[in-house]
Amino acid sequence: MTKKNRLIYLPLGGAGEIGMNMYLYGYGPKDKERFILVDVGVTFPDMDTTPGVDLIMADPSYIVERADRLEAIIITHAHEDHVGAIGLLYPQLQAPIYCRKFTAAIARNKMERNGQNPDHVHDVDVWPAQITAGPFTLGFMPIAHSIPEASALVIDTPAGRVIHSGDFKTDPTPMVGDPFDPELVRDIAKDGVLALICDSTNIFSKGKGRSELDISPAIHELMETASGMVVATTFGSNVARLKTLAQAAADSGRQVVVVGRAMDTMIKNAFATGVMTDFPPILDVEEALSVPRGQLLVLATGSQGERRAATAGLARGKYRGLSLKAGDTFLFSSKTIPGNEISVSYILNQLAEKGVNVIDDTSGLYHVSGHANRPDLEYMHELCNPQMVIPMHGQYRHLREHAEAAIALGREGIIAPNGTMLDLAKKGKHVGSIETGRTYLDGKPLIGAMDGIVRERLQMAMRGHVLVSLVIEEDGELLDGSWVQTVGLPNDTRVDGGLDGQLEDEIDKVLARASKKTLASDEGIETLVVRTSNQVCNNIIGKKPVCTVLINRLMVE
Amino acid sequence: MTKKNRLIYLPLGGAGEIGMNMYLYGYGPKDKERFILVDVGVTFPDMDTTPGVDLIMADPSYIVERADRLEAIIITHAHEDHVGAIGLLYPQLQAPIYCRKFTAAIARNKMERNGQNPDHVHDVDVWPAQITAGPFTLGFMPIAHSIPEASALVIDTPAGRVIHSGDFKTDPTPMVGDPFDPELVRDIAKDGVLALICDSTNIFSKGKGRSELDISPAIHELMETASGMVVATTFGSNVARLKTLAQAAADSGRQVVVVGRAMDTMIKNAFATGVMTDFPPILDVEEALSVPRGQLLVLATGSQGERRAATAGLARGKYRGLSLKAGDTFLFSSKTIPGNEISVSYILNQLAEKGVNVIDDTSGLYHVSGHANRPDLEYMHELCNPQMVIPMHGQYRHLREHAEAAIALGREGIIAPNGTMLDLAKKGKHVGSIETGRTYLDGKPLIGAMDGIVRERLQMAMRGHVLVSLVIEEDGELLDGSWVQTVGLPNDTRVDGGLDGQLEDEIDKVLARASKKTLASDEGIETLVVRTSNQVCNNIIGKKPVCTVLINRLMVE
Repeated sequence: MTKKNRLIYLPLGGAGEIGMNMYLYGYGPKDKERFILVDVGVTFPDMDTTPGVDLIMADPSYIVERADRLEAIIITHAHEDHVGAIGLLYPQLQAPIYCRKFTAAIARNKMERNGQNPDHVHDVDVWPAQITAGPFTLGFMPIAHSIPEASALVIDTPAGRVIHSGDFKTDPTPMVGDPFDPELVRDIAKDGVLALICDSTNIFSKGKGRSELDISPAIHELMETASGMVVATTFGSNVARLKTLAQAAADSGRQVVVVGRAMDTMIKNAFATGVMTDFPPILDVEEALSVPRGQLLVLATGSQGERRAATAGLARGKYRGLSLKAGDTFLFSSKTIPGNEISVSYILNQLAEKGVNVIDDTSGLYHVSGHANRPDLEYMHELCNPQMVIPMHGQYRHLREHAEAAIALGREGIIAPNGTMLDLAKKGKHVGSIETGRTYLDGKPLIGAMDGIVRERLQMAMRGHVLVSLVIEEDGELLDGSWVQTVGLPNDTRVDGGLDGQLEDEIDKVLARASKKTLASDEGIETLVVRTSNQVCNNIIGKKPVCTVLINRLMVE
Repeated sequence: MTKKNRLIYLPLGGAGEIGMNMYLYGYGPKDKERFILVDVGVTFPDMDTTPGVDLIMADPSYIVERADRLEAIIITHAHEDHVGAIGLLYPQLQAPIYCRKFTAAIARNKMERNGQNPDHVHDVDVWPAQITAGPFTLGFMPIAHSIPEASALVIDTPAGRVIHSGDFKTDPTPMVGDPFDPELVRDIAKDGVLALICDSTNIFSKGKGRSELDISPAIHELMETASGMVVATTFGSNVARLKTLAQAAADSGRQVVVVGRAMDTMIKNAFATGVMTDFPPILDVEEALSVPRGQLLVLATGSQGERRAATAGLARGKYRGLSLKAGDTFLFSSKTIPGNEISVSYILNQLAEKGVNVIDDTSGLYHVSGHANRPDLEYMHELCNPQMVIPMHGQYRHLREHAEAAIALGREGIIAPNGTMLDLAKKGKHVGSIETGRTYLDGKPLIGAMDGIVRERLQMAMRGHVLVSLVIEEDGELLDGSWVQTVGLPNDTRVDGGLDGQLEDEIDKVLARASKKTLASDEGIETLVVRTSNQVCNNIIGKKPVCTVLINRLMVE
């Protein structure tokens, strides 16, 4: 190690939101660092900010521009917010992908579905195995979460050892995956840890976290006492919960059916990779139709109210031949993510109308988080005893709270939101800031959040759309008057000719008064027409819609 | 009373959602009933369902068509979801409005702001005073809530007495307005109550409700120990909370400033009507600027993250000269309404970036609900001892849970969502169903939820908009080729000429192949063009955008 070498930590996504994780580590002299990219996740769109968008991921531009120096892509675990964008962004990244076996199976699935070669994904053994990627030596430390083979990363560099926690909880009995092993963490940390880059999701939860095992009794009791069919929904990728639910079903004489692609993929891959051997047998949906409903547990996707998922389908009516009846029980074994409350409550009401007994997440009896609470995070700090704690996987307020918690315990705590470049070899010194952003999957293409495309959609949604078509003759005169069509606007507004008619009249008048020079320029016409549209619409409907002018100039042939 | 007379209960809004309350009562022979309308409230739009909409209210069509038989409009209290639409719908309703003094002041304000004569609003004294409206005799029973002069209605008819609870809690120390008086309720109910039409908001809250007074000590402590400026936000219309906060400020040597119109209106009217006499003096914002920040409490609107309100303004930067600094405290003395979490969390992060100490609603120390919890509702059932309980003010699942609670206590419980017509004179028999819906204030005009206008906006937002302008010559030939412009769509998609160019090429080809007959009809052309747009776009960008075709036909002059 020479003094000139930097050890860069640069979050591109996930340090400013919960979701779309993407963290860059670099080692080497300035502008010659070799990089590893940790996690390539997605987050989900909403109507408020991203209508029509399919998926959101971090803008990878910084590393794409330096892709020749990217040594490896590491995926810590198989949740969407860590692996979801790998197939979409791989064409721009083009580096070998390393993860543990189960994660690799999911990553390969993502690669294939996006037309990428799954052979770029390499299986890695668990710690103490290590791999080398440029100046980095990397190990996958087993850690408890809600999915098999969740891992923290042990990142060794000439500047020292860094622990990147990934998503974790300190659960001794997580149902699937490895239990949290404090001795292992302590052992890995015993020769000194430069920095702990640490999950911050639950920093605001003050009590010690509960184990997945803790909710098993309540779920057992529910399965045993429910008289009709039980449907349970949770995240498709919460394999731990699927197992807790399925086990309770089996123990109470219910057969298990799975509806929804995400769950299916997870469970199949968990079987195929051998990480889950003791899951009760799964019945085909067709077979389930002939089983008495009191002997069924249906595991359904769509806990967040997603319109096309199984839960919404069952709430509406039949889904794959299954339907709910009065007396059945529907369990939300999940937390409603902020922003999804309205979609979920829509479903709760549909279920209530059917007379279905709904059990939601308010009691806390049927759901525990997969993330470490504040005391557990502090325990992790203690076990790793790092020179500095750098919170990640949280909104700004989580990062700040977590950094303050570290400081309160006598360690260095550094707030590093997306785009903050730290040199860990220099005590986490702030050595630069880069523009970060979001990339959207929008149908087939990837578009940038700042491209203005989605902003145009939001504008049309908020303000409606006035279309004005004009035909301009060779001599520059308007032919036949303007033609206006409005979309998303009230037309029947008690004015003569409706809003369209009033707009046409006024635009014709304005253009008739316009100079030859104005009419000669499309921009001149556009400015006039948009201004007129704003005035007329504001007057009649109190809004200034988006106005698009289409000018057809007749050519001398 | 003859046997032919019906006593109709027909919720038009509020029984299927929390918000936009509107309940109709009628008495008389079928189709000759005389009506009273209880509450004319609003609810608020969201991007998921109502982009660009300003306010949402119940569709009043049923009573508008029978407005000649409407004897009176009653407003139970001055919250937006009960009084917010009075000025907007008054032109269609045209009946005298009755409410207590403070509510009347707010209602008059709504009338004036919508160009209606405020003299249609009449002050009514509290129980035991009564007014007559056709066959109804009406009394305003004082009840505890979070606003002065909240009232339940005692509705006397020849068929018996009905109690319409309005919004209420059983708070003995509500800070403003009357304490809940069980003896009064019992006394009013003693000669028998036919039906209790009852608030269901908090039916899922199992513990006994807390009093407004219960949060006063924690708020006092916060004001005393905070070192910088304290800003507190809550609903502008939660006058009780404003008083709790202001009193704690005064007691700890802080002066009170109010920013935001809704709060200002409420407080001014509360003073003007004499319902609030012991509120601490309020400082002008300009004066506040010269007060040391440790001696200030700023009461700010915008607890739900509304972008144009004071809280969002302060989170962004300066608001009316005030600005936040590290070490200041920001208190959310409010509950985040489902659907607003993302807007609120945006603000929480902005405040965290400023180093402001944020105290949100998670602890429960600084906010209590204004509604009765399940045990309190059951207590109300007991006090009124009605022949039937009809839950209102709730989503379907609240109505169902509340009806089941009534049944469990040995009373009749009837689920009557919006549009359900019951005859209370016949044990609540279901005597009809009407179509109900929503009316939107959309800029200036009122539009119907089913008019398709908002659906068009949502479609443009989800799918983008392709505009195709065509000029067709007198002989039916396409002149100069088509002209395509896209709005809200990616154009730079690695295809020749971009998406627009590809669309133009393909539309030109298709139209060149089209028959004279097809080209002669605008509909024929439109069908062809839309189909082509769908194919091309789906192929290139994986979406089928909204496609609007503007056809200019050149006329023989």
